[in-house]
Amino acid sequence: MHADLAARLIDEQTMRRLTSLADLDPHLVVDDFNTLEASAALSEAEVIVSCWGCPPLTEDVLDRAPRLRAVIHAAGSVKHHITEACWRRGIDVTSAAWANALPVAEYTVAFVLLAGKEVLRIRDDYRQRRADQDWQAAYADAGNYRRTVGVIGASRIGRRVLELLRPHDLELLVHDPFLQPREAKRLGATAVDLNELCRRSDVVSLHAPELPATHHLINRERLAELRTGATLINTSRGSLVDQQALTEELVSGRLDAVLDVTAPEVLPAESPLYGLPNVVLTPHIAGSLGNELHRMAAAAADELERYVNSRPFAHPVSAEEWEHSA
Amino acid sequence: MHADLAARLIDEQTMRRLTSLADLDPHLVVDDFNTLEASAALSEAEVIVSCWGCPPLTEDVLDRAPRLRAVIHAAGSVKHHITEACWRRGIDVTSAAWANALPVAEYTVAFVLLAGKEVLRIRDDYRQRRADQDWQAAYADAGNYRRTVGVIGASRIGRRVLELLRPHDLELLVHDPFLQPREAKRLGATAVDLNELCRRSDVVSLHAPELPATHHLINRERLAELRTGATLINTSRGSLVDQQALTEELVSGRLDAVLDVTAPEVLPAESPLYGLPNVVLTPHIAGSLGNELHRMAAAAADELERYVNSRPFAHPVSAEEWEHSA
Repeated sequence: MHADLAARLIDEQTMRRLTSLADLDPHLVVDDFNTLEASAALSEAEVIVSCWGCPPLTEDVLDRAPRLRAVIHAAGSVKHHITEACWRRGIDVTSAAWANALPVAEYTVAFVLLAGKEVLRIRDDYRQRRADQDWQAAYADAGNYRRTVGVIGASRIGRRVLELLRPHDLELLVHDPFLQPREAKRLGATAVDLNELCRRSDVVSLHAPELPATHHLINRERLAELRTGATLINTSRGSLVDQQALTEELVSGRLDAVLDVTAPEVLPAESPLYGLPNVVLTPHIAGSLGNELHRMAAAAADELERYVNSRPFAHPVSAEEWEHSA
Repeated sequence: MHADLAARLIDEQTMRRLTSLADLDPHLVVDDFNTLEASAALSEAEVIVSCWGCPPLTEDVLDRAPRLRAVIHAAGSVKHHITEACWRRGIDVTSAAWANALPVAEYTVAFVLLAGKEVLRIRDDYRQRRADQDWQAAYADAGNYRRTVGVIGASRIGRRVLELLRPHDLELLVHDPFLQPREAKRLGATAVDLNELCRRSDVVSLHAPELPATHHLINRERLAELRTGATLINTSRGSLVDQQALTEELVSGRLDAVLDVTAPEVLPAESPLYGLPNVVLTPHIAGSLGNELHRMAAAAADELERYVNSRPFAHPVSAEEWEHSA
C-alpha cells in the first residue's frame, strides 16, 4: 500500500494486534515490489496485508514469493492487485469490502432521507429569505411518507442501503439482473426491471459495479424516465451515468442529484455542477474516510487472527466473485 | 384545526375511511368553537378529530358538548387544547405523537451521519476548490467509525433516534433523568449524566421537552464542555439552548450545529447563523411536513376505527403524561 496510507489506516490498537499475531514489521510498507527491501520481504512472506496502492501480484512477483499463502486486503476491491496467477497458485484472498460498504450505505441513506423531504432545498430557501413563510404550503409535496426509493444493484452496499431504509415508511424497489424476486422480498424490496424502477422512484441510488455492461446504464432515455423532481444518487462509478445528459437535466432543474462520483472523476473547474443548488457534489469520499479506515484495518487483523488459528477467512474472495466484480 | 390544514392533512384515501367509519362532515373544519356552525356540531359530537390550530377545550366548550367522549389528535402535543376539564369529564384522548416522532428522528439520523463524516463541509470545500486534493489527508479526523453520539431526552423521538443509530458503529450515550440504566442498555445506549454526555460526545442531539426545568439546559458552561469540532443538533425547542452562547461558539467556528429550532423561532434577518458554513439552519420542519401529514391523518383514522369498534386507543394520552409533557 502507499506508505503514507499505512499510518492513517492502522491505528495503534490494531497495529499492536497485528504485530502480536504475526512476525510483521510495522515499518515495512511498500507500493513497489522491485525494491531490495520488498524483494527480501517477499522471499519470506506467508501473508500480505494490502490496501490501496498495492501493485499487481503478477506471475513474476509470485515467483519471488514462494511461501505466500494469503492476501488480506484492508479495503474493498481486489481487482487491481489480485491476478489470475494468484488463483492458479491457490492463494487465499480476503477483503474488507463489507467494511467499506458501511460508510457508503450511511452516506446514501442520509441523503435519501434528506432528499425525500427536500431538507437542503429548504435550508437554502430559509438562508436566502431570512424570514418566515408558510412552509407547509411552500413544501406541500415534500416528506418521506410512502416515497418510493429505487436501488440499482443488490451489491453489498445496495443490500445494506435496503436494510437501513427498511424501518422507514418507504416503498423499496430493487433492480439487479442476478437477484431472485424471493431474495428481493427478503430484503424488503420489490424486484423490478430498470425502466420501471426509473419511472416509479422518487429517489434512485446506484450500487452497480463498473463493467462493460453497466457503462451508461443510466443513459439519456432512462434519465428522461425519471419523474420531475426525482433525485439520482451515485456513489458507485461515474461511468454508469451519461454525464452530459445528466448535466443537462440538472442545469434545467428538472432533476436533483447527489454525486460522489462523476465522469471524469474530478469535474473540470467550469462544470456547472459545482454551483448548482439542486446538486450535492462530493469528491469520492462516501467510501472509507478518516477513522473509517480503522474499520478496514481491524477487519484485516480479524482475518489475520483467523489465518493464524488455521480457521477459514470470514470474508473470502472467490475467483468467481473476483471475475464478476469491478 | 386550521381550515387550510385539513386539505393537506387528510388525503383522499383517509377521508374515505373517516367518512365510512363515522358520521363526519368533511367540510366542517373549525378553529373557533364560537361560530354557529361549530356550536351546532359541538352539541352533537361524540368525537373530535383535531390537529394544529384546535382551540382549548375549556369547561365552557365542554358544557356545550354533552355527548363528547373522545378527542383524536392528528398531531403531536395535546398540551394546547386538552385541559384539566377534559380529564375531569373522563374524555379519552389519543395523539399521533408517535407518527410525528418518525420524521424528526429521520432528520436527526441523517444529520448525525453527515456530521460525523463532515460531508457538508467537504461538499463546500470541493465546491470552492473545483479541483482535487488529498481528501484523506485533509479529512483524516472525519468518519463515522466509533464516534460517540449523545442523545438528551429518552422521549419517543430520542428512543427512535437511538433505534435508528443502533446498526452503526457508534457509541451511544443517553441522558434522561427518568431513564433507568437497564432501560438505556435495552436501547443500546449508556446512561450518563448531562455533563459527561457533553464532554464525551462528538454529536449531541436534543430531544427533551420544553419545561421550566429544561430552560437553557444547554447553557454556556455545557457548550464549553463540548469538544472542539462537535456538532449540536436541536430539533426540540429553541429555549433548551442559550442562543447567545451558542451563536458565539458557532461564529468562532469552534462548534458545528444543525438547528431546526432557535430562540426566537425565526431568527432576526441579521443573525450570522443564516450564513455560517458550519450551521445547518431549517425553519422548524423536522416534524411532519408535506406528505408526512398524511401519516398523522392515517393514525387518526386508525384510532377512530378502534373507537367505533369499542376497542381502546392504541396510543392513548394519560392525564399524567399530559401533565409532564411539553
